[in-house]
Amino acid sequence: MERGQGPRKRPDAYVIGVGHTAFGEAWEKSYRQLMTEAGLAAIQDAGIQGDEIDEVFVGTMSTGKLVGQEHVAPLLLDGAGLADLHIPATRVEASGASGGLAFRQAVQAIRAGGADIVVVGGLEKMTDVSDADAQAIASSGIDQEWEHFFGANDAALHALVAKRHMAEYGTTREQLAAVAVKNHAHGANNPLAQFRRAITPDKVLRAPMVAEPFTVFDCAPVSDGAACLVLASSGVVGSYRKDAVKVSGSGQASDALALHSRATTTTWRSTAEAARRAYTEAGISVADIRLAEVHDAYTINEILAIEDLGFVKKGEGGPATLEGRTGFDGDIVVNPSGGLKARGHPAGATGIAQVCEVVWQLRGEAKGRQVKDARIGVTHNTGGTGATAVVHVLEGGF
Amino acid sequence: MERGQGPRKRPDAYVIGVGHTAFGEAWEKSYRQLMTEAGLAAIQDAGIQGDEIDEVFVGTMSTGKLVGQEHVAPLLLDGAGLADLHIPATRVEASGASGGLAFRQAVQAIRAGGADIVVVGGLEKMTDVSDADAQAIASSGIDQEWEHFFGANDAALHALVAKRHMAEYGTTREQLAAVAVKNHAHGANNPLAQFRRAITPDKVLRAPMVAEPFTVFDCAPVSDGAACLVLASSGVVGSYRKDAVKVSGSGQASDALALHSRATTTTWRSTAEAARRAYTEAGISVADIRLAEVHDAYTINEILAIEDLGFVKKGEGGPATLEGRTGFDGDIVVNPSGGLKARGHPAGATGIAQVCEVVWQLRGEAKGRQVKDARIGVTHNTGGTGATAVVHVLEGGF
Repeated sequence: MERGQGPRKRPDAYVIGVGHTAFGEAWEKSYRQLMTEAGLAAIQDAGIQGDEIDEVFVGTMSTGKLVGQEHVAPLLLDGAGLADLHIPATRVEASGASGGLAFRQAVQAIRAGGADIVVVGGLEKMTDVSDADAQAIASSGIDQEWEHFFGANDAALHALVAKRHMAEYGTTREQLAAVAVKNHAHGANNPLAQFRRAITPDKVLRAPMVAEPFTVFDCAPVSDGAACLVLASSGVVGSYRKDAVKVSGSGQASDALALHSRATTTTWRSTAEAARRAYTEAGISVADIRLAEVHDAYTINEILAIEDLGFVKKGEGGPATLEGRTGFDGDIVVNPSGGLKARGHPAGATGIAQVCEVVWQLRGEAKGRQVKDARIGVTHNTGGTGATAVVHVLEGGF
Repeated sequence: MERGQGPRKRPDAYVIGVGHTAFGEAWEKSYRQLMTEAGLAAIQDAGIQGDEIDEVFVGTMSTGKLVGQEHVAPLLLDGAGLADLHIPATRVEASGASGGLAFRQAVQAIRAGGADIVVVGGLEKMTDVSDADAQAIASSGIDQEWEHFFGANDAALHALVAKRHMAEYGTTREQLAAVAVKNHAHGANNPLAQFRRAITPDKVLRAPMVAEPFTVFDCAPVSDGAACLVLASSGVVGSYRKDAVKVSGSGQASDALALHSRATTTTWRSTAEAARRAYTEAGISVADIRLAEVHDAYTINEILAIEDLGFVKKGEGGPATLEGRTGFDGDIVVNPSGGLKARGHPAGATGIAQVCEVVWQLRGEAKGRQVKDARIGVTHNTGGTGATAVVHVLEGGF
């Protein structure tokens, strides 16, 4: 059960419970209701009691601006009726990577040896503000002083990256659109996805322009939603469900916050470095990976991701996607859930939802979208224009 | 050097470098300049090179609302010219406890065995918004839906706690004022403090009312500032400065976010529980503690803190303070730095600044305010009305 151990024996982390609200526009639910719904579902899925929880982490990007509430981590316990247990609860934030980062902190808490059961949630309630405010808040993950203040926003910077990738590698508008087409097709089979309808390349190309070359279908939506996981240490995992999923690799890396401070914008070195660390820790190579949930906030992100994660060579992300090599008939299934594009992107929830999807896949529970013979899956979550990247390797079949 | 180890041998964390900007109104410096200033000072104090850093944590409460920037952790590296190293960088948030919580995450990262050198910063830039906005933002750490939305704010809730403590234990207005008088006297000797002047009890009592029984001198100010620490693992600490300070205990606890959800408001069970965990881990009793930096956002907070940390019996916090038992001539010196009241309270920086002060004290470097024979010091940092509490035990003389 244990392999790839370094000189010092440390506990490993396993996912034993998942919870995931429907993503979309949840006018009728507050952010704490969403968090409680996902949290209770995960606890029930794991079959644990509240008093077994040693620690809690919550990933959320901007509750302060979106709903006027900072200090949200204690609410996960509060909503579940567990406040009297005084369990440590910590919020972490890294823009769109907040969920993935919270997951990593939960894994680290177990590896530190002080916790056996850790609950980690991610959430965002984004649709209660105007579209303009939502765009401004999304842009608080890029550099405020050197980018946003001067008029660049999150979509515009990603569009610059796309244009540069097109210039350097010959990536085409149709290849970008192929990401959205694939992920909408996948999302149509995910009952929790915000958008559950297939779209055509033509629909992407003719949609309203957001920032050239992106139309609205190149961009993930503004969403409400929450997701939650229960983790167990190797010391206690045997007492819980038999289909626990092992977190065999965890990698995180940063980069300059401002895009213009980097030597290149078409390789996201934070992704490459986080992946290298995660794969090394897990003792795997890219060839072992059968599925991945990657961060496709814009279509260009998935192309960058599959290149920087090593799934395809640099510059081949566009052709590979258009040729179907990252779909269900391909070598590696990328974003079987529909990704951020179709599942939706409640910022802090995304990194946790990615792990939920991989866990369902590795358990064989991804009805209607099951990746065959899935044993190793990867999650990839980024913040801003890649100043934070988090990569995890998950393994089933233990 | 190692004692109190549990069954599994794990690395311990030591503080080997401190950096701390002046606290106050820093009109001429941006939040990233403050962070860079504190970060470079800590790195220089530790005598490390940038490429030795394995991981970074940053505690900040509300940069999104205060300066329009989330995703601040990568900036600590960016400002120091270290972005190209792709070091993992994580922001944590728990209202006023953000700094203490970031410190705990840094300690945990070392204990997890994956990091030998960790840098942890805390900062807030609060004076660039109106006083009304600053008060509203401070209140985003209490329950937005059930408290703030209905008109209660951070000061008002703490005032309710004070009134209840007065009713239950006979705590007097003069005893509350004695906290401010003591901490201003201490702050007068701290060159980095926002307020460096002694005040009289009469001045506190006759100052403008904020929320009965508090006048303006019962409340910590709105502040700008940053503080930073460098931590080393037991495996490498021998290669750095000889006066490293050991983090021998780390405790964190949560409670219901809303005050009305708790059985009592005059005992903060999160503090008591965090302290119990930290003392147990360190293998110390309260009698061993010679100094403490506690969270005195309002005068009542210090009275609650010294009771709930076990320094005095419940209900005796007021008399003990008035009698000078928590000053330089007392049994235990509380807030030798001046505390939040006089040093200032840039929310996310406070928990790190508390550790800076204890490290200076344990190194014997607290010129003009040195606690004699200091060997064990405690830090105590809370968020909102105590929904998060973090307690650390630090030991010098190794």
